[in-house]
Amino acid sequence: MTRQVDMSHGAGGRAMARLIDDLFRAALDNPALARGHDAALLDLPPGRVVMSTDSFVISPLFFPGGDIGSLAVHGTVNDIAMGGGVPQALTAGFILEEGFPLADLERIVASMAKAARAAGVSIVSGDTKVVERGKGDGVFINTTGIGVVPDGVTIDPAQAQVGDAVLVSGTLGDHGVAIMASREGLEFGTDLTSDAASLNHMVAAMLRVAPDMRVLRDPTRGGLAAAVNEIAQASGVGIELDEATLPLRPEVRGACELLGLDPLNVANEGKLLAICPPARAEALLQVMQADPLGRDAAIIGRVIDDPRCFVRMRTGLGGARMVDWIAGEQLPRIC
Amino acid sequence: MTRQVDMSHGAGGRAMARLIDDLFRAALDNPALARGHDAALLDLPPGRVVMSTDSFVISPLFFPGGDIGSLAVHGTVNDIAMGGGVPQALTAGFILEEGFPLADLERIVASMAKAARAAGVSIVSGDTKVVERGKGDGVFINTTGIGVVPDGVTIDPAQAQVGDAVLVSGTLGDHGVAIMASREGLEFGTDLTSDAASLNHMVAAMLRVAPDMRVLRDPTRGGLAAAVNEIAQASGVGIELDEATLPLRPEVRGACELLGLDPLNVANEGKLLAICPPARAEALLQVMQADPLGRDAAIIGRVIDDPRCFVRMRTGLGGARMVDWIAGEQLPRIC
Repeated sequence: MTRQVDMSHGAGGRAMARLIDDLFRAALDNPALARGHDAALLDLPPGRVVMSTDSFVISPLFFPGGDIGSLAVHGTVNDIAMGGGVPQALTAGFILEEGFPLADLERIVASMAKAARAAGVSIVSGDTKVVERGKGDGVFINTTGIGVVPDGVTIDPAQAQVGDAVLVSGTLGDHGVAIMASREGLEFGTDLTSDAASLNHMVAAMLRVAPDMRVLRDPTRGGLAAAVNEIAQASGVGIELDEATLPLRPEVRGACELLGLDPLNVANEGKLLAICPPARAEALLQVMQADPLGRDAAIIGRVIDDPRCFVRMRTGLGGARMVDWIAGEQLPRIC
Repeated sequence: MTRQVDMSHGAGGRAMARLIDDLFRAALDNPALARGHDAALLDLPPGRVVMSTDSFVISPLFFPGGDIGSLAVHGTVNDIAMGGGVPQALTAGFILEEGFPLADLERIVASMAKAARAAGVSIVSGDTKVVERGKGDGVFINTTGIGVVPDGVTIDPAQAQVGDAVLVSGTLGDHGVAIMASREGLEFGTDLTSDAASLNHMVAAMLRVAPDMRVLRDPTRGGLAAAVNEIAQASGVGIELDEATLPLRPEVRGACELLGLDPLNVANEGKLLAICPPARAEALLQVMQADPLGRDAAIIGRVIDDPRCFVRMRTGLGGARMVDWIAGEQLPRIC
């Protein structure tokens, strides 16, 4: 019989201790976790601390290009990096549904461990809860991270200034379309996979050439459209994008047409939006393109004066259209 | 019609932004959250950092003495305090089930805000996800916290030494029995409520009189029995408890007899176990008893030499019995 999660795995007794020792501690091995205290003790380098949290409820749990475990690491590493922080430590909280196969949990934890090693962070503290069959959906994971911001760096969505350049690190909408395709059993192309990845190493290189970076943002739920609108409002500016410059895979374009989606509203999990002083834009672009995760990076627009804080897009024929964020549900449980 | 959570509240668009602004940001008001960045920027005092995470899946969501919101604050504040840390900041991650009444969510968030204010911590970053009806259970909350450990303090479950005194801050099993009673609709007494509370202020006072404290632990899931067994194993010692000294409410004793539970296995959410050098025990006891949350504190045992790391209890008539931790499920979803 397949070994499964049962209610005892969350009850604080021996079964839970064994699960933590055999599965979590073995895979995520690091000194803080090995101590077995509820709270992990960390030695942080000096500097301001950034802290961010994300819960992951993605469906399906395994998808082309990743799984809920790797995604949970990438997502929080990226939130820290978008705050200008060098990620130091993550925590992981699991909510397991009774009956979930332990082999799947093992695969997910191994995938978290691999993603954390690649990003250079440790998972220092964890928690496991179990809910009855039908009260959860396999596994939900919360990751929370802390990072330290280097001296001289201040990244803030309210810092965009008129004239600044707007860059994106690569093709848009890959994650959302890959998840939709895998959920619906659709085939849009052979290599359509999620872009989920940790961007902290690329951000470190970017901050070396542009320490005066104004804004960094990962356009996850709500896509690029939500991210640029939030920044425009926070900074009290307008943003103008050039449609022709937006990196877009042909298969994502095709899938969005078929599904009635605007790729600007579709989630990314391994892309970032950067806003910097115009004089830095070319150097920044080169650094981004030199990183495998930024190969398709492009300058896609500029910050303009607009008291209404509108985002507009210049289209092919000299026209323009508004870039709005979605009002309601578009792609549920995409992360 | 009652306003409810719908899938759009987790989709990254306008409905989610409005929920965050109207409900979370309004209740949890603080500068880090107000900035609206995914990552919160913190200025921490110097010192070693402790970090801890907990997900809360308690059922029912509202219970005598608290609710999932206040519990989520107390639980993580206590984990930080048990690591010797002065709590600085919490994050909150919500997994909401479609159809959950917004009025209940509002009540829970207000309760979190109140608990956080009382503990002196800010909730600096949050996240909201929504799952379809039948894929969750109302609301699950993850809280993750960081704290700073004062110089000279080192708390560790591996530090118990032969001869040390073992103290507990009050009556045992109140939380678990109150939840069971409320779940089953049983009546065991008029004032049987959860003990859930943040213990950080009491811990600060305790560390002032006993900076050489060895171990602090909140006996949550698995109860006192799991906590003392974990400490005995981590420290490579035995522990001997005196049954006559264990603080226990008569109604909890009665309820445990009726339900077939051992109060030593039942969860507490506002109690701590302290292990200190014997010369500190009396002074520590006085400080604990001077705090309303430690009124019923008692010295309950001592650390003994035992290479098998057993925990035993001296019973009334000069006898002794083993204190074991539970192997399987006892009280599911107690926190």
